[in-house]
Amino acid sequence: MEPAAPLPGTQDLLLESARRLRRCEAALCDVFEKGGYGEVIPPAIEGADVFGPEAFRALDRSGRLIALRADFTAQVARIAATRLAGVSPLRLYYRGSVVRRLESGPVYERLQAGCELVGAPGAEADAEILGLAAASLHSLGLKDARISMGSTGYFSALASAAGASPRLAGALNDAVDRKDMPTLRTLCEREVPPGKARDAILMLAEPPRPQTAARELLQRAEALAPTDEAREALQRVSAALAAARDLGAELEVDLGEVRGLGYYSGIVFNLYAAGAPRPVGGGGRYDNLLGRFGDPRPAVGFSLDLDALMPLC
Amino acid sequence: MEPAAPLPGTQDLLLESARRLRRCEAALCDVFEKGGYGEVIPPAIEGADVFGPEAFRALDRSGRLIALRADFTAQVARIAATRLAGVSPLRLYYRGSVVRRLESGPVYERLQAGCELVGAPGAEADAEILGLAAASLHSLGLKDARISMGSTGYFSALASAAGASPRLAGALNDAVDRKDMPTLRTLCEREVPPGKARDAILMLAEPPRPQTAARELLQRAEALAPTDEAREALQRVSAALAAARDLGAELEVDLGEVRGLGYYSGIVFNLYAAGAPRPVGGGGRYDNLLGRFGDPRPAVGFSLDLDALMPLC
Repeated sequence: MEPAAPLPGTQDLLLESARRLRRCEAALCDVFEKGGYGEVIPPAIEGADVFGPEAFRALDRSGRLIALRADFTAQVARIAATRLAGVSPLRLYYRGSVVRRLESGPVYERLQAGCELVGAPGAEADAEILGLAAASLHSLGLKDARISMGSTGYFSALASAAGASPRLAGALNDAVDRKDMPTLRTLCEREVPPGKARDAILMLAEPPRPQTAARELLQRAEALAPTDEAREALQRVSAALAAARDLGAELEVDLGEVRGLGYYSGIVFNLYAAGAPRPVGGGGRYDNLLGRFGDPRPAVGFSLDLDALMPLC
Repeated sequence: MEPAAPLPGTQDLLLESARRLRRCEAALCDVFEKGGYGEVIPPAIEGADVFGPEAFRALDRSGRLIALRADFTAQVARIAATRLAGVSPLRLYYRGSVVRRLESGPVYERLQAGCELVGAPGAEADAEILGLAAASLHSLGLKDARISMGSTGYFSALASAAGASPRLAGALNDAVDRKDMPTLRTLCEREVPPGKARDAILMLAEPPRPQTAARELLQRAEALAPTDEAREALQRVSAALAAARDLGAELEVDLGEVRGLGYYSGIVFNLYAAGAPRPVGGGGRYDNLLGRFGDPRPAVGFSLDLDALMPLC
């Protein structure tokens, strides 16, 4: 007899669950369309190089290495860089599932929906995406949503100014990501020379600040910023914060907010909702991704994790 | 630089094309829901044994052999046989993409939507599915749709009665499928002993008959039917034909209509529309598929090929 259950890491959505997913999708698409975004539907499989190491890859019988869709943003970047290369700014959205593999091996599937704003470099574009993320969560009835914003460039600027080895940078990053202040302090005391960079790294594990109190945090960080690169990263966060008004969701600044995917280059953010054990989405600026497909244009976007959101809707 | 085009065999649906697909899907879902069908959303990957040889399979790093979704019907059968095992009849629909591999190796992706009626054995259930297929094509504005119905059991009953080897049965099947009367005649004259079975096989390449003229074809075939199995297969076609009234699409009988997938056990049909170079869908009865998942129940269903339909909508 054949296996009768879905693979671990995947699920069947039946009847009422399927209806709930479609209701969520419809509410989100309505927000996206009203925001001027148009849908793209990329394929379920891609050339092996489109995605990062999280993708599941395998040879087909013609000897071609293919990858399962692991990330819509990379696919949208490919599309924006080719068939839609002439149009700026470009507002695109998607919905569907991604398949990724854990480092330990097994693959799993996740349902997503999200938006990408391509060809718009500034803080206004960052704020448009933050606003769309907030409106998306609001459309699902999540009135207590929270956006936690940081900068992916800030941490690497600090690690670089502190002369951290890749091993040490990884350990610091892990401690920051877990907000593990004791480990961060120990690592800094043992392995980072005293100075502005060390003080700034220690600040990364401080608790997030709500929008009204974030100015003070950013000013303190700026006073410690050891390099132009670090200062510039902070200024991008400040500018996005200033441009993002009346989001309808709490926007807080967390300088220790680091997103996993490798292509982010400016602000990054995670989305939280009461009752969800993990972030319900996230996003950020990725100004260097389209260049990989031959069309260097800045871009910023976000995606929602519908598996995490559905139980709340 | 990374590859900038989708893989051959896959496509990006952008903006207006995506809108057209979603419009088609919405029209179809409306027909399905009004018919009392509820949606299921199965995962994009499955255990390797769920699908037939058309599936793309690969090992993940944990040593698990997984398959990409190659066929919704097998997934719906798995679901019906497990989490929905107590409910009969069961009316389920789906939409999404399947990934298959050509015999020569490369994989390709197709967009589908379809319905499965589980736990209903008779001609009335066959007719319900034929009617839903007709209503689906009508909802897309295809007023000249045609359903061409045959029987998968009939050909195998004839081949078996004629004592055909698997090689000869395959060659006859190919000739019937291509409606290649000269080849069929040559094969029969050279390799099939004279008799009712040979005469019946030669009839398979006759042109299809419209519903009003099908009775005569079926009576002639029944007079030649060499075994009870062959007669029973024809009677199932006759019964479905009698039960299917006012479909809103032309229903014709083509005894040479053979569907590719291996699980069909009763009537089979293809759907045609003017302007489409290939069938825009098809279906049939598969009374032995759920038993593979431990819940032997009869079932009948159909799927639409949205890639073929979209240019017509």
